[in-house]
Amino acid sequence: MNKPIGKTDASQKTPVNQPKTARGEATRNAILGAAERVIGAKGYSDASIGHITSEAGVAQGTFYIYFKTKEEVFSELVLEMGRLVRHTISEATQGIENRLEAEKAGLRAFLEFVKAHPDLYRIVQEALFVDPDAYREYYGAFADGYRTGLTEAEAAGQISIGDPDTRAWALMGIARALGEQLVVFNSETPISELVASAYDLIENGIKP
Amino acid sequence: MNKPIGKTDASQKTPVNQPKTARGEATRNAILGAAERVIGAKGYSDASIGHITSEAGVAQGTFYIYFKTKEEVFSELVLEMGRLVRHTISEATQGIENRLEAEKAGLRAFLEFVKAHPDLYRIVQEALFVDPDAYREYYGAFADGYRTGLTEAEAAGQISIGDPDTRAWALMGIARALGEQLVVFNSETPISELVASAYDLIENGIKP
Repeated sequence: MNKPIGKTDASQKTPVNQPKTARGEATRNAILGAAERVIGAKGYSDASIGHITSEAGVAQGTFYIYFKTKEEVFSELVLEMGRLVRHTISEATQGIENRLEAEKAGLRAFLEFVKAHPDLYRIVQEALFVDPDAYREYYGAFADGYRTGLTEAEAAGQISIGDPDTRAWALMGIARALGEQLVVFNSETPISELVASAYDLIENGIKP
Repeated sequence: MNKPIGKTDASQKTPVNQPKTARGEATRNAILGAAERVIGAKGYSDASIGHITSEAGVAQGTFYIYFKTKEEVFSELVLEMGRLVRHTISEATQGIENRLEAEKAGLRAFLEFVKAHPDLYRIVQEALFVDPDAYREYYGAFADGYRTGLTEAEAAGQISIGDPDTRAWALMGIARALGEQLVVFNSETPISELVASAYDLIENGIKP
């Protein structure tokens, strides 16, 4: 269920300590993937660098070629989650001109991503306590992009007039709550049903 | 900004180790209020029982009259947050027959509560890592009540037809995201504006 992460698109922000060789990149990705599983399962404070390197199948010293501390690999996972989610949503909504349709496709892509990466979801939540700056950067970057998209859609007459900032946070809140239903509450409601109900609310509200 | 908590309504669930005397109750409440401030500021793992009793102005041994462990006082804070938020929303919506109007009044009361208790909000979030059962109980109890209210409102024709479960989670997600804007992102948008924008989305959606 939990795919290793680490591959980033060339167009995305280059992480610090990015290795120069393909083999180095594979090792760094193995460490990141292992950190995702170990920190996701044990939580930040109980996960040790030894656990992570053991899970990655590398010597403990190898960790320090790529990361200075456990906090650094943790912060990198939060950034990685942000890059991956934005990339996933951007791919899923590519070519969709209408904002409402893009909203629906983006919500579905987000929920599928979260279901495939339950550990990453938990890691982002734990960032509020381990690395609050990374947490604020994660949600802040999303809100910025969301606000811009809503402002453009409003100008194009694709959505009604309304405060794009509060709407961005509200829509992110819906996506997050439904993602949490999947990976924290282990809801068995199919993603397609979650998306259909939530999209109806987003499109039409609940007025009779 | 951060009022001590601990007073509960007689009609609500009685906590374990509830003291029998008024003085005992005052001491227990002082410890709970101190734990709220200390754990909210330092986080669970850095907050010690010594910090909590020092903040409460009681001897360290006094803590153990009311709570067995730091985890127990933490779990009690999460339960207390649930009781207080439900009580606050219930008071704010009392006598409002129409669900949409109740939705608006409840959202405003929730945001005012969160702004007054930023530490409690953080504590509930940290419960996902410290006491996942308390976390699930907190949101699960809210979702149950919300679902019931939406089902009744749908039957009464006060809201449109739709899945009450997904709607409950989506609406909780909106409230949570706006609360987080206030206490994690320190947004200066007045609560009245947040409520007006979010309520417009909840009532009408964003369709042009």
